[in-house]
Amino acid sequence: MPVNLPTPTPESLLPVRGVLLGTAEAAIKKPGRKDLLLLQLPPCATVAGVFTQNRFCAAPVIVAREHLAAGKGVRALVVNTGNANAGTGEAGLAAARATCAEVANLLDCDAEQVLPFSTGVIMEPLPLQRVLHGLPHCVADLNENNWHAAAHAIMTTDIVAKAVSRQIAVAGKTITITGIAKGSGMIHPNMATMLGYIATDAAVAQPLLQRMVSRASDASFNCITVDGDTSTNDALMLIATGMDDAPAMVDENSAGCTELQAAVTEVATLLAQAIVRDGEGATKFITINVEGGSSFAECKQIAYAVARSPLVKTAFFASDPNLGRILAAIGYAGVADLDVQRIRLSLDDVLVAEHGGRAASYREEDGQRVMRQSDITIRIELQRGAAQATVWTCDFSYDYVKINASYRS
Amino acid sequence: MPVNLPTPTPESLLPVRGVLLGTAEAAIKKPGRKDLLLLQLPPCATVAGVFTQNRFCAAPVIVAREHLAAGKGVRALVVNTGNANAGTGEAGLAAARATCAEVANLLDCDAEQVLPFSTGVIMEPLPLQRVLHGLPHCVADLNENNWHAAAHAIMTTDIVAKAVSRQIAVAGKTITITGIAKGSGMIHPNMATMLGYIATDAAVAQPLLQRMVSRASDASFNCITVDGDTSTNDALMLIATGMDDAPAMVDENSAGCTELQAAVTEVATLLAQAIVRDGEGATKFITINVEGGSSFAECKQIAYAVARSPLVKTAFFASDPNLGRILAAIGYAGVADLDVQRIRLSLDDVLVAEHGGRAASYREEDGQRVMRQSDITIRIELQRGAAQATVWTCDFSYDYVKINASYRS
Repeated sequence: MPVNLPTPTPESLLPVRGVLLGTAEAAIKKPGRKDLLLLQLPPCATVAGVFTQNRFCAAPVIVAREHLAAGKGVRALVVNTGNANAGTGEAGLAAARATCAEVANLLDCDAEQVLPFSTGVIMEPLPLQRVLHGLPHCVADLNENNWHAAAHAIMTTDIVAKAVSRQIAVAGKTITITGIAKGSGMIHPNMATMLGYIATDAAVAQPLLQRMVSRASDASFNCITVDGDTSTNDALMLIATGMDDAPAMVDENSAGCTELQAAVTEVATLLAQAIVRDGEGATKFITINVEGGSSFAECKQIAYAVARSPLVKTAFFASDPNLGRILAAIGYAGVADLDVQRIRLSLDDVLVAEHGGRAASYREEDGQRVMRQSDITIRIELQRGAAQATVWTCDFSYDYVKINASYRS
Repeated sequence: MPVNLPTPTPESLLPVRGVLLGTAEAAIKKPGRKDLLLLQLPPCATVAGVFTQNRFCAAPVIVAREHLAAGKGVRALVVNTGNANAGTGEAGLAAARATCAEVANLLDCDAEQVLPFSTGVIMEPLPLQRVLHGLPHCVADLNENNWHAAAHAIMTTDIVAKAVSRQIAVAGKTITITGIAKGSGMIHPNMATMLGYIATDAAVAQPLLQRMVSRASDASFNCITVDGDTSTNDALMLIATGMDDAPAMVDENSAGCTELQAAVTEVATLLAQAIVRDGEGATKFITINVEGGSSFAECKQIAYAVARSPLVKTAFFASDPNLGRILAAIGYAGVADLDVQRIRLSLDDVLVAEHGGRAASYREEDGQRVMRQSDITIRIELQRGAAQATVWTCDFSYDYVKINASYRS
């Protein structure tokens, strides 16, 4: 079950002026569930995104990048779950393009103004006819108040939908930010999560919006891992409809830019953490803080080595303070000149190790007490600089194996 | 249960002239099992080794490196299981040195001529008094025919002991090579396995022996992974007693050098594969061949990305040909300019993917047939060069989680 992750209520999700959402049951993998989502945007909207770095990136990722680069603006995003349209070769690209063409036809825009996204099983042909058949139902359903349904329509092995809203005030005007995301397994984003969409009614120039989404993803989706597997379909999109009443933001000096960046990053962080809390088989939510490093890169490298270690993750599942496994992971993280004598390791408020070994003050029952919690912070002090990094992950349980040994059935 | 790994019989293990082995029950972790091993070598023996690259390397690794560097020759190796003496700070170093001093006292040699090794739980103090108490029993047991007992005395979560012998003829004389190893979890060696010892009665100069052990480990222990966790205690030692009747080997041009290298590498490879076949919770033995790369490094990088992927490993456990997960792992391996259109993926004789997607000839039942086997080869053709690499791994099962969620209890 998800770790301390409440289900978002429909009322908690605020509409974003200009963003219309419609969902449909297209029976892409199986019937009887919403599996197709359409977002329609006004002509004044700007859109920016970051995509997976996986070389086997999915057909829709290739097409979405092309369409963004075409620079004609974005009038719609279309998302299906149940099939990733990845590892599908030329036929997959054709299916993604045909989907965009049909959306353009229905909404009276250019196909290059439509961005496609897919998530689900890899290397199966996308059932294009089902997608095309579902699209008119999405169009008929388009509405500003559909964020809750949209969050559900993009889930795969997710147990809980991920969605959050925030509002900020800029120059006396209210700006709304609402975001949704999905993801539970194959989570080790390298630029973005499986799928995330954040929209605001602020007016933001496209180059600034691109910097905003990069900064937000670097501080959120790029700091999580469930199983160390980087997906073929990761994408995080940031939409600014420009339909609020505040002045447009054109660069970092624009009024409200700092506040909007902070709100977007907060929304992205909450969505990213929600993915980990709903990680496949997760029973613990683990925050790994590496401090006192000589660079951000080495702090993150060490944090990820600990976060990815199956031995560390199974120890947390068992609530077993077998904490030497954390030292081992720090040691093999690949930081060549690391002086292990200087490293301090703590679990929440309990100092576990220092001077290359177990701390004199450490008592097994203190470690045990923290390990039994569902939210745990691992603190690693390197004591060789001022840099720090945080990574969020979950434990590794029987259910992780169960879910992934039976995902296609 | 171990995958197609027969238990070695005592008769299959050939004594190596000059190597005496003795074991004892020292109750280091629990009573009633052999957990202490002593190897005594003649003065003419040469010894070379490779050790873990983990920065949190164990106290015995530090001391063994020091003693080898002292250049006084090696007269004994002492190995305990049940406790890794890693993450134990200054007290751990003192315990490793005290162990060597006692061995030196019992065998009438210098403490710097003794190499210590430990394996077991990390960050627990080594019960030194039990080790010291067990040593005289090892001495009393010293015998050329104890390889079988020795292989058992170094096991931790291993189900089956790992040991193998080979003989080669050089200039009409017979040379024997016998090796033992242990390891089952925390297996992702970076220079060597958990613990491996290979001895020959050939006479080999120390610098040549060092090159031999490096080459052997690069082709064997450095090509396996169980869980991606590099241990704090890895060590592979190669012993040449020089008690055969053939001329001493001093460099690569010496008679028999090529044959001995091949035999040592074969023994090392069989031991390394035995560790994977007995990997924690393993039900499948998987060989990953990456061919046609532009460098060995990139081939190995891709092979390891596939070998480490929890999603790939759980799919093999389920015998589910969810083979898009292999494409995803190839894609995120970090080879930046990889052209996925050129890659061909096969399972044994079944072509699965080409041209960026599923092969036209691929049928699910063919993939299913191979996935049900206990020995499976994944072949990845990059078609961009002549380099190749092979990595051996196992699947990821409920039992892996079970074993590692309860290892200390």
